[in-house]
Amino acid sequence: MPIKSEKQKMLSGELFNPSDSQLSDERNRTKKLCFQLNQTCPTKIELRRAIIQEIMQSESGGYIESPFNCDYGYNIKAGKNLYINHGCTILDGNQINIGDNCLIAPGVVIATVNHPHDPTIRATWLEYALPINIGNDVWIGANATICPGVTIGSNCIVAAGSLVNNDLPANTVCGGVPAKVLKNNPPQ
Amino acid sequence: MPIKSEKQKMLSGELFNPSDSQLSDERNRTKKLCFQLNQTCPTKIELRRAIIQEIMQSESGGYIESPFNCDYGYNIKAGKNLYINHGCTILDGNQINIGDNCLIAPGVVIATVNHPHDPTIRATWLEYALPINIGNDVWIGANATICPGVTIGSNCIVAAGSLVNNDLPANTVCGGVPAKVLKNNPPQ
Amino acid sequence: MPIKSEKQKMLSGELFNPSDSQLSDERNRTKKLCFQLNQTCPTKIELRRAIIQEIMQSESGGYIESPFNCDYGYNIKAGKNLYINHGCTILDGNQINIGDNCLIAPGVVIATVNHPHDPTIRATWLEYALPINIGNDVWIGANATICPGVTIGSNCIVAAGSLVNNDLPANTVCGGVPAKVLKNNPPQ
Repeated sequence: MPIKSEKQKMLSGELFNPSDSQLSDERNRTKKLCFQLNQTCPTKIELRRAIIQEIMQSESGGYIESPFNCDYGYNIKAGKNLYINHGCTILDGNQINIGDNCLIAPGVVIATVNHPHDPTIRATWLEYALPINIGNDVWIGANATICPGVTIGSNCIVAAGSLVNNDLPANTVCGGVPAKVLKNNPPQ
Repeated sequence: MPIKSEKQKMLSGELFNPSDSQLSDERNRTKKLCFQLNQTCPTKIELRRAIIQEIMQSESGGYIESPFNCDYGYNIKAGKNLYINHGCTILDGNQINIGDNCLIAPGVVIATVNHPHDPTIRATWLEYALPINIGNDVWIGANATICPGVTIGSNCIVAAGSLVNNDLPANTVCGGVPAKVLKNNPPQ
Repeated sequence: MPIKSEKQKMLSGELFNPSDSQLSDERNRTKKLCFQLNQTCPTKIELRRAIIQEIMQSESGGYIESPFNCDYGYNIKAGKNLYINHGCTILDGNQINIGDNCLIAPGVVIATVNHPHDPTIRATWLEYALPINIGNDVWIGANATICPGVTIGSNCIVAAGSLVNNDLPANTVCGGVPAKVLKNNPPQ
């Protein structure tokens, strides 16, 4: 049986070593690009768009205000018209699928990365990452946190300050710590 | 009847198009100034104060740590001695009135901007903004979020991590997601 | 009886005047170094480590992503292998003791500084700071806020979005606003 690389382990949700040289190189690439993005004046919109596309290695990319940081970039797969406001961080050890027309408010953290609960294992720095799926037309409010492995259905409105550690259904308004369905929100 | 500009619609709380050229120009002005503020060393206090006053187009201005970002700047009307700590974002599509001696802790988001709940309308990027009123002597704790349209009474202490989506009365300590009155706090 | 300096008052948890010239100078030193850290490309890891050690005036220091800001730096005493992710702020008017192998997620605020509840005293800008103790193997989740005076026991996992305003016991998973014990987490 061929031995899996640390990157293969990361992408399949297994414990992996983030200090691995391939993963360190990839994070360095991405964090340097995020630094360049954050050092580029907001009025240089086309240059910023080009950096964002390089970060995500994708043509859509959307638009992102600064400061913005992520780990790998290529794991963020966004549909049309993604808008990410100031001060968001995305830890994309595993894939983050974002549909069309999504709005992400200031201070949101989207984290695929988890650490083991056992302190001895956690202290080795081994970690694992679970994919996050966000449908179309999702609006995530300010200072919300999206946890590893969750799915947020299309046209879900996530209230500001929410902790999303469970799946949220489509066509709802959800909120709270942890986030629960507050009301239905069917398209009119 | 004269046709309202997008800016007039924005300031009157109606649905408006933020991609309008006047509003885009005004945001570009402000975001460039915020970028300059964030690129200026914290020890250059007088230069930073001058940039802050230019952002808010006002003499008071107060003092703001970086990173800080806002949308228009001129809608933030602050009394004496405003202090805003690191990592705050203010989305000021409508007016934000802040009284004297207010303290805003790190990571706070104050957002006047709301998006329509219907996904088809939301996907057009039309949005609306409701004014926020903050009295004198208000202290907003770290990572709190202040939502569109709320009024926070004078001498209200908003606990860290709160979601403020309803009015909060004067002379109280409030907190939670959503924030509620936790106890009275009359001046001694 | 000798008169206490404002710094001595600060470190002993008494009301102090942060505008005092010694404290202002010390904050200027630290905020300038944080600015340099935040202006240094993430790939220049050794240079960043050196700045972090200068901020904390300690050899351990750990590793900190940007943006990062703190007030004095020398009050942050960290054990081995501290890792602080993007967008964290530490207000270290009093001592913050952090054990070995601690992980701090994006958007966390750790604040020793409190303001008086009486508005007349608060408006004088006098404030006070209470020490924070964080054990070994503590993992603090994204966008959590740690309040003045709390102790977090070793191997405590603090859920994302938590408000920690009371002590949390060792070997637990805690969370919520305010944070409570959610379950035990003994080492395996």
